[in-house]
Amino acid sequence: MAETQEQEKSQTRLQSFAEALESGRLVTIRRMVNELHAAEIAHLLESLPPSERELVWEMVEPDKDGDILSYVNDDVRAKLIHQMETDELVAAAESLDTDDLADILQDLPDMVIHEVLQSMSEQDRFRLEAVLSYPEDTAGGLMNIDTVTVRPNVTIDVVLRYLRLRGQLPEMTDYLYVVNRNDKFLGLLSLADIVTKDPGLMVGQVMIHDFEPIPANMSAREVAGLFERRDLITAPVVDDDGRLLGRITIDDVVDVIREEAEHSIMSMAGLDEEDDIFAPVVVSSRRRGIWLGINLITALIASWVIGLFDATIEKVVALAVLMPIVASMGGIAGSQTLTLVIRGMALGHIGSANAKRILTKELAVGGLNGLLWALVVAVVSTLWFGNYMIGVIIAAAMLINLVAAALAGATIPLFMRRMGIDPALSSSVVLTTVTDVVGFFAFLGLATVVLL
Amino acid sequence: MAETQEQEKSQTRLQSFAEALESGRLVTIRRMVNELHAAEIAHLLESLPPSERELVWEMVEPDKDGDILSYVNDDVRAKLIHQMETDELVAAAESLDTDDLADILQDLPDMVIHEVLQSMSEQDRFRLEAVLSYPEDTAGGLMNIDTVTVRPNVTIDVVLRYLRLRGQLPEMTDYLYVVNRNDKFLGLLSLADIVTKDPGLMVGQVMIHDFEPIPANMSAREVAGLFERRDLITAPVVDDDGRLLGRITIDDVVDVIREEAEHSIMSMAGLDEEDDIFAPVVVSSRRRGIWLGINLITALIASWVIGLFDATIEKVVALAVLMPIVASMGGIAGSQTLTLVIRGMALGHIGSANAKRILTKELAVGGLNGLLWALVVAVVSTLWFGNYMIGVIIAAAMLINLVAAALAGATIPLFMRRMGIDPALSSSVVLTTVTDVVGFFAFLGLATVVLL
Repeated sequence: MAETQEQEKSQTRLQSFAEALESGRLVTIRRMVNELHAAEIAHLLESLPPSERELVWEMVEPDKDGDILSYVNDDVRAKLIHQMETDELVAAAESLDTDDLADILQDLPDMVIHEVLQSMSEQDRFRLEAVLSYPEDTAGGLMNIDTVTVRPNVTIDVVLRYLRLRGQLPEMTDYLYVVNRNDKFLGLLSLADIVTKDPGLMVGQVMIHDFEPIPANMSAREVAGLFERRDLITAPVVDDDGRLLGRITIDDVVDVIREEAEHSIMSMAGLDEEDDIFAPVVVSSRRRGIWLGINLITALIASWVIGLFDATIEKVVALAVLMPIVASMGGIAGSQTLTLVIRGMALGHIGSANAKRILTKELAVGGLNGLLWALVVAVVSTLWFGNYMIGVIIAAAMLINLVAAALAGATIPLFMRRMGIDPALSSSVVLTTVTDVVGFFAFLGLATVVLL
Repeated sequence: MAETQEQEKSQTRLQSFAEALESGRLVTIRRMVNELHAAEIAHLLESLPPSERELVWEMVEPDKDGDILSYVNDDVRAKLIHQMETDELVAAAESLDTDDLADILQDLPDMVIHEVLQSMSEQDRFRLEAVLSYPEDTAGGLMNIDTVTVRPNVTIDVVLRYLRLRGQLPEMTDYLYVVNRNDKFLGLLSLADIVTKDPGLMVGQVMIHDFEPIPANMSAREVAGLFERRDLITAPVVDDDGRLLGRITIDDVVDVIREEAEHSIMSMAGLDEEDDIFAPVVVSSRRRGIWLGINLITALIASWVIGLFDATIEKVVALAVLMPIVASMGGIAGSQTLTLVIRGMALGHIGSANAKRILTKELAVGGLNGLLWALVVAVVSTLWFGNYMIGVIIAAAMLINLVAAALAGATIPLFMRRMGIDPALSSSVVLTTVTDVVGFFAFLGLATVVLL
């Protein structure tokens, strides 16, 4: 992951902003900001500390406000909205697509929501309510309602004349949706077919019949998988009766994929991907402090295990010197297995059907690496303390701990999922507890039996 | 990340495959396999252990071979190719798009490459060589060459007649590319405009003039950023002289985004996202063993620090019991900062321009959490060992270590990147070394000074 041009550019931009802000060249800043795309401004706002973020936000042209709000993360959005007047908010909200509006609606003050709904046409209000009635992480929550529909019993030529009359198409329109008079979804008519097929043909003859529309209650993640596997750009969303509700576009699916991956990475360190990196110190400290507190419990359990053997340590102080090696090697090996299994589960490669095979394999890998590194550590310890028995003990403890780590790393995430707990968030703490306890117990326990 | 329907379905499928394979119902298996899409078969093959994978691969209809090979990960692909005859490979290779063919070409035996190139038309061979001349992780490596071009000085109506004559368009065609007679890129003509605009207008009047084409040497990651920010579906790729070479489609960009995220997650545990989860035990052990070896060096350094204070530990054995708490809390806090910074860098939020602010903030968070948890640990330790001096010492050591962890977590990734080393892969080992060494040194050092 070497520094790419893109990152450099984004950093250079940030640098020049920082300089312009420091020297108070507000006109320059205003010009620079408004030359950027909404997504780029959103990115910039996320990269700026609060005071400068507020200043830049003031300078953004109002017609971009809505778009930018739909791009920034939840934390930053709440702060930006807090800074805006009611009429600015209403104007911003009115400029948005329904799916984006639905996303930010919950952050808006009640008065604004009321005004926005008032200002909409009845049809739009009806559609927005349709989107809002589905959870954000379902197909219904992801969908937009800007579909263009045609009937099956007209010719391509009629469709072409209708489209020329219409004058323009929503962004990312690759298909028109063919529906009957009750809005029931019948099939897809691609723009490519409209421009390449004989204009005398009927829509019903040309359309794709066998496309299965997406049910509105399908999970966002499943939608993402479908888009990836079928290489879709847009897909129609239908209700339980097969009536067309809207469509999902690939840009929203890319966001789902991106967020899902971010979520895995961040949860494994007890972080939230929607957090503002410049959140006030107290807020960040509280969120992360909870994670530290949970880990402190783990550490105290490990200490308690060590405490059981304090008499042994007092006699052979070399044990205190060597014991962190056993625990830490177990932790590292376990987290490799854990990461592999959590990702495999997220990608659907691993589940109850092949869990046993994965476990067997991971135990073998743990055993083999346990043997290898146990030998190395045994030699080092024997040379260091001039006592081959210490070498034998640490080798045995390490082998035990690496096998335990493989067992724990492979089973904890599956167990967590069965309990309905997010494995990415919770597994690593439990794993550390296991590898610490087993590591210290095996090493100090063996030493107590053998050396005393 | 609760169990989604998609994962359930994929697991159910895997389960029924496993059962069918066990009972040897080969006809059932063949039918089940060939009902799936290529991407779904690829996913299935990745989820099966080697022996069953080979069996299923034998049953796949030959015309799907090429597509499936372009979907599976590098490791699995090499194994599947190994199992195929030359003529099967040639047939599979011939069925692929140039960008996919370019991706798998390096895995093919020389004889197959030769035959595939021989079988191609001169134009296709020329185009394949163009794709091959760019590294896989650049725009040139991602691009496909199935562009449809038009001239600016014809009417929309002429374009429509040309397209009807042509009969079909490549998948994911949202724009035709407007070029001059030397193939220099001039602009974009959307299918949407072709079907909505007055057919008497000239292409040059309707086309989008201000779209900046992608230079062939732009990095894949930068391409992904561009697609995300501008909500693109396809984009033209040009050489240094502005001549059209091909186009990039969103499906390949989604793969880049997915792989980049996988890479971050896997590297942090010293794993490779292209590894086969069912690689032979010896292969997996070797790869992961190296990572364990590197971490063993860290652990030995930590032990050496403890060894410096063995006389102190011998006198106050409570120190041995408590010392892992200081090190592990530092490690957890540091890895939070580290994850935040590595992701911030990958997303372009963090770089040299705002590094100092991030550092200040992280130090403050570390200090605050250090104070809080130092107090808690101090109380616990004092009660446990009935010696308030031990409480004071561990509190001080913990505060020091959490501040050091914040410092290390925020600066190591930036330093690694400057050195040209992948921060996701290397930072965590260095961080652990820092938090272990500082933690043990601060705690045992203070104890030596104060207690003895």
